[in-house]
This record gives sequence, C-alpha cells and structure tokens, in this order.
Amino acid sequence: MKHTISVLVENEFGVLARVAGLFSGRGFNIDSLSVAESQDPEVSLMTIVTRGDDQIIEQIIKQLHKLVSVLKVTDLHEGEYLDRELILVKVNATEQSKPEILRLVDIFRGKIVDVSPKTYTIEMTGGEDKIRAVLELLRPLGIKEICRTGKVAMPRGIQSVTV
Amino acid sequence: MKHTISVLVENEFGVLARVAGLFSGRGFNIDSLSVAESQDPEVSLMTIVTRGDDQIIEQIIKQLHKLVSVLKVTDLHEGEYLDRELILVKVNATEQSKPEILRLVDIFRGKIVDVSPKTYTIEMTGGEDKIRAVLELLRPLGIKEICRTGKVAMPRGIQSVTV
Repeated sequence: MKHTISVLVENEFGVLARVAGLFSGRGFNIDSLSVAESQDPEVSLMTIVTRGDDQIIEQIIKQLHKLVSVLKVTDLHEGEYLDRELILVKVNATEQSKPEILRLVDIFRGKIVDVSPKTYTIEMTGGEDKIRAVLELLRPLGIKEICRTGKVAMPRGIQSVTV
Repeated sequence: MKHTISVLVENEFGVLARVAGLFSGRGFNIDSLSVAESQDPEVSLMTIVTRGDDQIIEQIIKQLHKLVSVLKVTDLHEGEYLDRELILVKVNATEQSKPEILRLVDIFRGKIVDVSPKTYTIEMTGGEDKIRAVLELLRPLGIKEICRTGKVAMPRGIQSVTV
C-alpha cells in the first residue's frame, strides 16, 4: 500500500541521510521525496512517498520519532489531504506534433516554459492521476526528459503537519 | 555560492541515503532536495540545491560520480537552465484578508486549492525570486503552513541531464 508521510525536521546536516537510511535499512524503497524549508527557516519539511506493508511502515514511523532532529511525523491518510506535484517535461516538437502538444497543454492547464527549434518544455502541476494521464498522452509524441518534484501534501482544512 | 546539481541514479534503496551522506559527511547542508522517477521507471532523478565553496562542491561531485548506482551528475550553471518550484501555502482567511489574498493569487497566477471557514490553501509555482516575493507578501496576512517541493531544474533547449 502507498503511504505519504510528512516529516518535520530541524534544518541541519545529517538528518536527511538518517531518515533515508531508516527506509533503506529495512529494504524499503522511497518512491519520491522532497525536502525544503518550512515557514520556519530553522525547520525543514519532508514529504516521503513509499510503498509497503502497513505494519512495517508503522515501525518505520515509530523509529522516525526516535531520531534526533525529527520534530513531528504525520502519516497522511487518503482523502484527508491534498497533494500536488510539479513536472517539467521536454518533448520533441515537430510541425506535426506541435498543435497536439499545445492542445494538451491547454486542456491540462500547463505552460510552455521553454522552446527550442526541436523541443517544447512543459510545466504542469497536479495530483497523481492527472500527471500520469498527461505523461501517457505525451509519451507517443516523444518525451526527451522528465523532471518531477515528487509529491508534496498538506492536510485539508485547518489541520497542519508543521505545528 | 548556491549550486544546483542534478543526479541521475538507479532506482534502488540505499542510493538516497548514500548521496545525502556524502553531503552531510562534509558538513554541507542541503537546502532542498527532490527525487522522483525519471522517464525511465528504473532510474530516478534528484535535484539538489546546496551552498558552499566551489572547490568543495567540486570534490563532492567527483565523489558522487564514484558512488555505486549513480549514473550521471550535472552541475547546472546559472542562466543555462530553467528551474521551478511548487509551493502549497495555507493562510488565515478573514473577511478583511480574503480580497487581498485573492488579488495576490490572481497576480501571481496561483490557484486556491482548498478552502475552510478560516483558511485558504494556495498552490503556486515559479522560480526562486517569485516564490520569495509571494511568501513575503502573504506573511503579514498570517501563514499557517508552507509545504514546498524544492527546486527542480532542466537545461534549456535540447540539452538534457538524463541521457
């Protein structure tokens, strides 16, 4: 089962290595991870997407709590949070494919952020399903490169993962 | 000096911990990091933003090259790449502040992605300067929570960091 976990940590070196080490030490792959400073520059917020047995995830979360510099761990449950990802996609742009690329960008409310004689680079944001759909539609046109941020997630309403 | 480094790695557990460990072992803080699968699901692309002495960064890059599972390392130079970040920001929404929040969202082409009786959650993408400007303008209105992906970057034109 897929899990999205928010980890609030003190912004100091070594924390990321320790957190990542906890996952890999148990043979858990991290599907995506993003970390950047939160509203407090002394504190960083990580969003980790992983997959695996609920019991083992529960153990990992318990161990995360015990790590020095970890301030808060939140296991986000389906439906209670909103999540978004940003992708940059460089696609081959030919006279034939350009109109279709522009239509897709328009439909999915993306933006063309760079143009070269043979490529368009698209910026797009969305949840998992939208991003998957866009990539499937762009693939036959020839994707040169994808750079994705991985998911960030935030509880809906007034709830918070940082305080 | 600020550095943005793309690291292409085989998608297997332990790589992230090793990469993060290289930075922390030398006392280097990672400002932001994002990792997710690339166009090849077997391969992940990391974007790391760090700050420090050019010479030490050069050493780190050399050592990254030597790590098992690291396929390619690119030190991206200012002006030659485009970079974007996604942020979710939950702000206090009162009768007084709502019109100003909506104006800012409109001007910066963001989106309101969640609403509660007392909060608005905003999605916004942009480069470093834009994100900084938005956050400065939102701060006096009362930011409850910020969740940012960290920067992803891609060379302009037909260049690539993944092949």
